Amino acid sequence: MEQISKLTIGECEVEGFIDRIRDQKSMQFIVIRDRSGKLQITVDKASKPEIASIFSSNLLVDSVVRVKGTIVENPYVKLGGKELLPESVEVVSRAEVSPIDSESGIDQRLDYRWIDLRDSKKRLIFEVQTALVHGFRKFLIEKDFIEVHCPTISGNESESGAGVFEVKYFDRKAYLIQSPQFYKQMAIAGGFERVFISTPVYRAENSHTKQHATEFSGFDLEFTNVSDVEDVMKMEEELLYAGIKEVKEKLGDRVKEELGIDIVVPSLPFPRLTMKEAYDILNNKCDFPIEEGEDFDREAEKLLTAYMAKKTGHQFFFVKEYPSAVRPFYSMKKEDDKAYSKTYDLYYKDIEITSGAQREHRADVLTEQIREKGIDPKTMQETYIDFFKYGCPPHGGFGMGLDRITMLLLDLPSIKEAMFIFRGPERIRP
Amino acid sequence: MEQISKLTIGECEVEGFIDRIRDQKSMQFIVIRDRSGKLQITVDKASKPEIASIFSSNLLVDSVVRVKGTIVENPYVKLGGKELLPESVEVVSRAEVSPIDSESGIDQRLDYRWIDLRDSKKRLIFEVQTALVHGFRKFLIEKDFIEVHCPTISGNESESGAGVFEVKYFDRKAYLIQSPQFYKQMAIAGGFERVFISTPVYRAENSHTKQHATEFSGFDLEFTNVSDVEDVMKMEEELLYAGIKEVKEKLGDRVKEELGIDIVVPSLPFPRLTMKEAYDILNNKCDFPIEEGEDFDREAEKLLTAYMAKKTGHQFFFVKEYPSAVRPFYSMKKEDDKAYSKTYDLYYKDIEITSGAQREHRADVLTEQIREKGIDPKTMQETYIDFFKYGCPPHGGFGMGLDRITMLLLDLPSIKEAMFIFRGPERIRP
Repeated sequence: MEQISKLTIGECEVEGFIDRIRDQKSMQFIVIRDRSGKLQITVDKASKPEIASIFSSNLLVDSVVRVKGTIVENPYVKLGGKELLPESVEVVSRAEVSPIDSESGIDQRLDYRWIDLRDSKKRLIFEVQTALVHGFRKFLIEKDFIEVHCPTISGNESESGAGVFEVKYFDRKAYLIQSPQFYKQMAIAGGFERVFISTPVYRAENSHTKQHATEFSGFDLEFTNVSDVEDVMKMEEELLYAGIKEVKEKLGDRVKEELGIDIVVPSLPFPRLTMKEAYDILNNKCDFPIEEGEDFDREAEKLLTAYMAKKTGHQFFFVKEYPSAVRPFYSMKKEDDKAYSKTYDLYYKDIEITSGAQREHRADVLTEQIREKGIDPKTMQETYIDFFKYGCPPHGGFGMGLDRITMLLLDLPSIKEAMFIFRGPERIRP
Repeated sequence: MEQISKLTIGECEVEGFIDRIRDQKSMQFIVIRDRSGKLQITVDKASKPEIASIFSSNLLVDSVVRVKGTIVENPYVKLGGKELLPESVEVVSRAEVSPIDSESGIDQRLDYRWIDLRDSKKRLIFEVQTALVHGFRKFLIEKDFIEVHCPTISGNESESGAGVFEVKYFDRKAYLIQSPQFYKQMAIAGGFERVFISTPVYRAENSHTKQHATEFSGFDLEFTNVSDVEDVMKMEEELLYAGIKEVKEKLGDRVKEELGIDIVVPSLPFPRLTMKEAYDILNNKCDFPIEEGEDFDREAEKLLTAYMAKKTGHQFFFVKEYPSAVRPFYSMKKEDDKAYSKTYDLYYKDIEITSGAQREHRADVLTEQIREKGIDPKTMQETYIDFFKYGCPPHGGFGMGLDRITMLLLDLPSIKEAMFIFRGPERIRP
């Protein structure tokens, strides 16, 4: 069978969901659809009474039919000036009345996600995500990265704190990873030099913002030949450029037409601010008093984004050199001012989409930094610190959430729309 | 900095693990390595006493050094006729004595997997897997498949039986998926037509065979335009061809040289046997009495593989049309003989690597088949059967384990060697 958009004049066999049925006195006009498009089936009731009886019976839209017949030209038909005159119709799947419609709220729609997704606009979201990630992977493989599949179940007790899901692992406790951070650094210690990991990651957090989920798709890089956080930022902006360019080239026109969104392939380099510059801008250009060291709240993020967009015309910007106190123990501190770290966040359309850093690769310094965070280094000795005891090159990396980037790229109102199946504190079905 | 293999005559800066140190009376010969190769550093102790003192101190192999200096030609040096005369050496990571060596057993090696992996032969395994999966994805994206990221945490009680890991999900119980089966079928009901999913999957089984793990990397397809199991088998053999071809083209020579393995790009189509034919071969050609309906044990699998290899010269073969009784409820039965199903297994070098089928897409038939397996359909109504109640096209698909295929492709003795980090009943670290 051919897809609808590939059908040519002449005999054909085609399958699709029934999109609508118009049953007139002597004629029936049925529209079927597949991913590629829609097609009108025209039934002359007098000459095809068996077929007419199929469509005039209790057959509901969204039922699936397989139709054999002939495609003919008909300039009066809106759907491409073609119609299908059927010789035989088989109902291959009979639909019941849909429990949701265009008025349904997001939670109802997610209960019946498979019906909700029967909309080319929504499916396009996942075609865009497919192209984005394919663009990422092509870029990375071109650059000789190794793809690593890491476990998501870990026995690491140090991750057993708040925010971690516990797994009953035979007669023991184990935990679901919050990120592949430890594993990708292990690959670096193992001499892999450049790795990427695409894996689900988990957050047992009772968050209900538009950008949080309890399980989401992480996309992580880690690599050597890093002397500074700039080396990491450079890799990330090039990766994002490659991914978004792939989306633009493959689907830019459809995204514009169906979703009304311009995919903007970002120019390189992305603008950069140090954390100090960001504080300065907020205090002195945005009339937003904020103390150095304070976290940005949503308003600060929005003001900074608006300022940077106006000044640079860019949708992305980096903020780098965060205070060491607010960054994880595995970040490297700046040599000349240890109160600050070789870290960054990347903002895209006012949301933080990624954190990156040069990592601390020296076991002794790392041990001390773990202690500074109030963690007993013994609890992380075998599962982390030991990775660096037998030689490990300097390295850095970053991680991002694919769903969040997809949401922002397409200006979706919530991450729930950007995920094939959303998981939140109240949602583990379907 | 450049990789070692890309260094040219003249000044350079390079970083690598110390591979060995030879400290002679007046000269030191140090070999460093990175992913691309090895390089000799030659130190004249009289003229470079500070550098000599670095290498003659307690610096152990696997420490990482960053070296600036000049690459010169020297036909006496085995490593490419080149050596590096250093101007400065920085020890960027100091290694302790390795807890494992070439005599260590697999369990000890896995305890220190990051040291174990510092071997180009072992790293090559993951370069091969990267190429294989990239080959798969390129093939699928070319064929307009959508990549779907599905959750691995499910609230599905029907999967709460033996073999499933339980997760403490806030104040509820949830489960880790055994396969993305339900989700990929949901995507089909959602009109996606062609999807692939690359996701970790979980088996809470106390198995200790060479091909089992409690967590492994699943690679799953599901697609429409399927009228028979043949349509599914055809897609799978083409996919495997594309992936193995990618490996052969990109890494075939290195695999031959370093691992002594010939990557064989399979010819199409793969040979096919019906289950009935397989029973007949075992009974009448292999002198292996077996009753119809009995599962193949390891010996039967090996005999059948040897027979097929001899007869067809092929490393792969399909066995199709298994008895419905031994296949999952979601398989479609043959129309003309409901005791048999539209299912298959694919064998590769005597191990089953995948199961595939046309699925039952009719909610009423599916409900009946669930009941036949002794499961109360009510427990699967909302989380599975409902996917098919509102219209769903006929479809089929298959799933495979990437680690298992990698193990077989490279003739590795165990899946533990094919996984970056293995997870088994006794192993959740590191």
